[in-house]
Amino acid sequence: MTPLSRIALLLSYEGTDFCGWQMQDPSQTKAPSVQKTLQDAARGIFGETIRFHASGRTDAGVHALGQVAHADIPSRCLLNTNAHKILRSLNSKLPSTLRVLKVANVPEAFHAMKSAISKQYRYRILTGPADIPIASRFAWHLPYTLNIEQMKETLAALVGTFDFKSFQSAGTPLKSTTRTILSTDLGINADPFLNPFLSSDYMALDIRFRGTGFLKQMVRNLVGTLVKVGRGHMSPDEFSSLLEARDRTKAGVAAPSQGLTLEKVYYSDPLF
Amino acid sequence: MTPLSRIALLLSYEGTDFCGWQMQDPSQTKAPSVQKTLQDAARGIFGETIRFHASGRTDAGVHALGQVAHADIPSRCLLNTNAHKILRSLNSKLPSTLRVLKVANVPEAFHAMKSAISKQYRYRILTGPADIPIASRFAWHLPYTLNIEQMKETLAALVGTFDFKSFQSAGTPLKSTTRTILSTDLGINADPFLNPFLSSDYMALDIRFRGTGFLKQMVRNLVGTLVKVGRGHMSPDEFSSLLEARDRTKAGVAAPSQGLTLEKVYYSDPLF
Repeated sequence: MTPLSRIALLLSYEGTDFCGWQMQDPSQTKAPSVQKTLQDAARGIFGETIRFHASGRTDAGVHALGQVAHADIPSRCLLNTNAHKILRSLNSKLPSTLRVLKVANVPEAFHAMKSAISKQYRYRILTGPADIPIASRFAWHLPYTLNIEQMKETLAALVGTFDFKSFQSAGTPLKSTTRTILSTDLGINADPFLNPFLSSDYMALDIRFRGTGFLKQMVRNLVGTLVKVGRGHMSPDEFSSLLEARDRTKAGVAAPSQGLTLEKVYYSDPLF
Repeated sequence: MTPLSRIALLLSYEGTDFCGWQMQDPSQTKAPSVQKTLQDAARGIFGETIRFHASGRTDAGVHALGQVAHADIPSRCLLNTNAHKILRSLNSKLPSTLRVLKVANVPEAFHAMKSAISKQYRYRILTGPADIPIASRFAWHLPYTLNIEQMKETLAALVGTFDFKSFQSAGTPLKSTTRTILSTDLGINADPFLNPFLSSDYMALDIRFRGTGFLKQMVRNLVGTLVKVGRGHMSPDEFSSLLEARDRTKAGVAAPSQGLTLEKVYYSDPLF
């Protein structure tokens, strides 16, 4: 049997034209998955099928700045080369919307999903009379002003361990829908590039969630409902009641995928 | 004769798929211009050809966060509507890569180019082993580290009034190639979104120039040569000598257009 060595990859992708991380039945979707795109590139380099396991799936249209995946490659490939050459070889075969930012050798016990301690997502909302072309691929445009204080109050109350069943989209049944959110944050106009024209008319909201685990579309469902609070259609107290109700039918619709980016996956030791 | 009223527009566009601001001979390029795209949309609304004049041309591939243009529209159109309705009507007909962010009524004496006092451009460089998909549309990726201190020294020496003939690309002959740069700046990792993975391996450089006027491709030519300084292929003193030489053949190649964004146009009174 071929001796194998485990490597970990730091990945960034623009999710716009991907059907998500996970490989899909080709009859269901015409868009490629990140996983298959990566595996096709790896096959061209290593001459055999290499399976990549991510820290978690990302949905169609969701972006990643720091997704992490691991794979086992033939040890001889690492003897003949090094991590930097693997990075360059893979990137030379990948489309420009997907890049390997770092490669590291990791112990066999490392698992991109099981070893992860927590993950951080950013959701960006742009408000104002028009969408902004240089930002629109990575944001949800809303043509009305939002009550920031009410949204901050709601976000602060989400830190802790709760049953998030109200904010889970239909999918594989899970034993438990209890998850822990370690921190939340709402940054206003934090991007210095957008600042020259941001004013009372236009605003960029960067909403961050760091947690030990997330249910299917949980961040997008939380943001969709948070916007109801921002618009004054729901109070922070009603949001809390909704969380306690454990009933998906009462939450707002999921915020669109293009505003969401997986920023970082945390492990006990820095990987790269 | 139809009474006309002058309006000013704040425009943002992703330059990737445009041939630049200026209308081109269709036999020369297949990409649409920003100007023609805007004028086609306006014709659909006002029922006649409306000509838009920008603060200045932007090259093919160059982006804008805050381009300004003016146009004269039939006064009756303003009587029957208002600035916000014009914004919404135009945006409903424009592609998602071009948006009107603000509309204002301005005096007949206002001219988007002639009334402009100064303009600010940003040029973004990303360094590191790989390009970053979520940033690559608006940046120039360089796979090597740059000497920031030497670049800052060079930029500081550019503030003032100089003959920039060395940094002018071929084009319409001008009476004078003397221009004034009011300020320059080099920000490192200023975008909080990119921060989670920026480290010694990856870096985002935001180079800003504010000036009263710029020659053809002047910013891109300055940045292309500045990178030679950053790589250690030219000293800040050699850069100064090059400026004094007034000889285009000695400067570095122009930095690619996708890294450049027109951030803001300044007028004596705020327009919007």
